[in-house]
Amino acid sequence: MANGIADRPPARRPGGRNARVRAQILAATAELVARDGIAGFRYEEVAEFAGVHKTSVYRNWPDREELVVEALLSYAEDLASVADTGDIHRDLVDYLLALAGGLETPFGRTLEQAIQPARQSPTVRQALTRILDQRVAAVGRRVDTAVDRGELPPVDSAFLGEMISGPVRLIVNRGMRPFTRADAERIVGVVLAGIRATAPHV
Amino acid sequence: MANGIADRPPARRPGGRNARVRAQILAATAELVARDGIAGFRYEEVAEFAGVHKTSVYRNWPDREELVVEALLSYAEDLASVADTGDIHRDLVDYLLALAGGLETPFGRTLEQAIQPARQSPTVRQALTRILDQRVAAVGRRVDTAVDRGELPPVDSAFLGEMISGPVRLIVNRGMRPFTRADAERIVGVVLAGIRATAPHV
Repeated sequence: MANGIADRPPARRPGGRNARVRAQILAATAELVARDGIAGFRYEEVAEFAGVHKTSVYRNWPDREELVVEALLSYAEDLASVADTGDIHRDLVDYLLALAGGLETPFGRTLEQAIQPARQSPTVRQALTRILDQRVAAVGRRVDTAVDRGELPPVDSAFLGEMISGPVRLIVNRGMRPFTRADAERIVGVVLAGIRATAPHV
Repeated sequence: MANGIADRPPARRPGGRNARVRAQILAATAELVARDGIAGFRYEEVAEFAGVHKTSVYRNWPDREELVVEALLSYAEDLASVADTGDIHRDLVDYLLALAGGLETPFGRTLEQAIQPARQSPTVRQALTRILDQRVAAVGRRVDTAVDRGELPPVDSAFLGEMISGPVRLIVNRGMRPFTRADAERIVGVVLAGIRATAPHV
């Protein structure tokens, strides 16, 4: 990702140069938070990693917490959507694989640790809650579509999300074995079958 | 359960006074680890909390890591068994409620954070692995009994354990809402129904 940014020609985006600088700073912050934790990173290093002047970091984010929060949010966007191929089983399997991949990165590990609410400031906690809410909402939208199409019986989609992502987190965070597509298939298979079997017959 | 112990008459156990002192030291260590983390607690405080002489702590556990490991193991024993009432659904629901109760304590939170493997020494990691293995084994034994009795189709009991405890950890660790018996009922209901529905017909 660092390479991807470096290789691009100077972008002409709304905001221009400053937008690019901000994106570089956020990417650098996300990387340093992953390495050193939320409390550990330093503005000097962010500037160095981002290849910008230290004053650019201070000017854009005079507040350290706001920098952390924006970096967390920008980095977590990848998991805030679930594909719709028309096959709910397949789409949820792919989502679980992406989730596991995300959790296995240094950044994902930091995020998981940071989720322990007692450890965080209200602002950071809010950002983490928002990240999780976005994921829950993304799964929920996809599940609701499946319900509308008759692929699934009416179901509490937040509960379904917890049922499929809970085991993924457990397996990845424990770190005793890699998370595979077979795991994802098995989890989604059992949960969807269980939801269908326990649905009240209307 | 603490009451149950307090109500008993003074036990005549092998080891006598020293066994009692050791138990007090382990309980104090578990409490301090919960409060200050594995790296944070001090021998002086352990002695003070346990109401024993500091030399008793040093004599029994010259090695700090061994003290932590024994304290973790002694505190985690409660969850190393699953009741057998003959009703697998009910027994797993009760296990999940006990698991959630354990995770919600300060000690449980510490344990969860300490599980992040990269953060720990090999010795502590081994102890944590052993705690988790004991739980997995306890669920496994209970599930195997249910399979023997024809209550469940043949099933990978480690997978079943991940399927039911993963969502519990997610809900408790996120800390957005309390974990209730209704949650436990719903989780066990969906997973057992899903396992029955997806079992290969022999």
